Amino acid sequence: MARAAAGPEIERLIQLLARLPGLGPRSARRAALHLVKKKEQLLDPLASALAETRDTILTCETCGNIDTQSPCTLCRDNTRDRSMICVVEEVGDLWALERAAVINGLYHVLGGTLSPLDGVGPDDLTIPKLIDRAADPQVTEVLLALNATVEGQSTAHYLMDQLAGCNVAVSRLAQGVPIGGELDYLDEGTLAAAVKARKAM
Amino acid sequence: MARAAAGPEIERLIQLLARLPGLGPRSARRAALHLVKKKEQLLDPLASALAETRDTILTCETCGNIDTQSPCTLCRDNTRDRSMICVVEEVGDLWALERAAVINGLYHVLGGTLSPLDGVGPDDLTIPKLIDRAADPQVTEVLLALNATVEGQSTAHYLMDQLAGCNVAVSRLAQGVPIGGELDYLDEGTLAAAVKARKAM
Repeated sequence: MARAAAGPEIERLIQLLARLPGLGPRSARRAALHLVKKKEQLLDPLASALAETRDTILTCETCGNIDTQSPCTLCRDNTRDRSMICVVEEVGDLWALERAAVINGLYHVLGGTLSPLDGVGPDDLTIPKLIDRAADPQVTEVLLALNATVEGQSTAHYLMDQLAGCNVAVSRLAQGVPIGGELDYLDEGTLAAAVKARKAM
Repeated sequence: MARAAAGPEIERLIQLLARLPGLGPRSARRAALHLVKKKEQLLDPLASALAETRDTILTCETCGNIDTQSPCTLCRDNTRDRSMICVVEEVGDLWALERAAVINGLYHVLGGTLSPLDGVGPDDLTIPKLIDRAADPQVTEVLLALNATVEGQSTAHYLMDQLAGCNVAVSRLAQGVPIGGELDYLDEGTLAAAVKARKAM
């Protein structure tokens, strides 16, 4: 019989923290204790930050990014190249590309991949909106930066077909050996892709 | 050059989440995205739970437990055995013992261990208060449930000396092979303690 040593408020906080990815029941308990111990330095600012996020967060109506304004900071940024749209599955992918600072164009977040078995069709993703955006004469390239998974790649093929009508070049990310990757640890699919796309030195 | 794809509010939330034990910068980012995606189910209740914790949390003036009232729920509980005080280092230890439901007495949270090198003396912990509590004629046993570390054990020895004046039996947790433990993976200190404290079957 497990008993609760703390009040119901803290038990509730622990249960909610345990639902964050990367935290289990035990680490949620540790996190809650840490929060309570560091009240001024951590609990107060985190409570405020969460409340502020809750009250201000929006999904950008243009690209699907998450921000406190719509259109988002990236879509509003006039220094970005409006001729290119980089298509990603999730907001996390957009953030990863922005961290690498490798895309100077705009983005489009699909919200997932096509999955007929799970009943996820084109209208459940933001595919119609992407086709609209790609039809803008300003846009000349659509880069399909989808995950190198079966779902990602079949969605990419579907998008390629759909974008054939628009006057845009459709590209995809290069596949091959990741930087720092050791051949011994790579799967056969990656090695095959790297050999097939080999470059003259 | 890393760029922020989301607004400063979200970057701030990520930085705060990264300071929780068990979450690094990368998992904090994932947690923040997860929160934003599950706004109704997770972000809203977590923001409320944190605000409520911030506004209601107290340290029990008697035992040092964390609760929303002082004296805490455990100290107020009249069904508990007031003749025994179980001394622990941190609130997390108290919670662990309560989860196991093995202590029916009261607790006393020291707030750490003695550490002369770090300038932590008896007055930096709640040791004077413990001596006061142990002097109560109602108290007959003090169980020193400190960690089986050098710091925990030297603090236990100090407490034993201090409690010699009070009319209480001082005990400590048994040491030995943990339940489910395989001898092959146990350190020599544990094995030595288990052999030394062996019991007739």
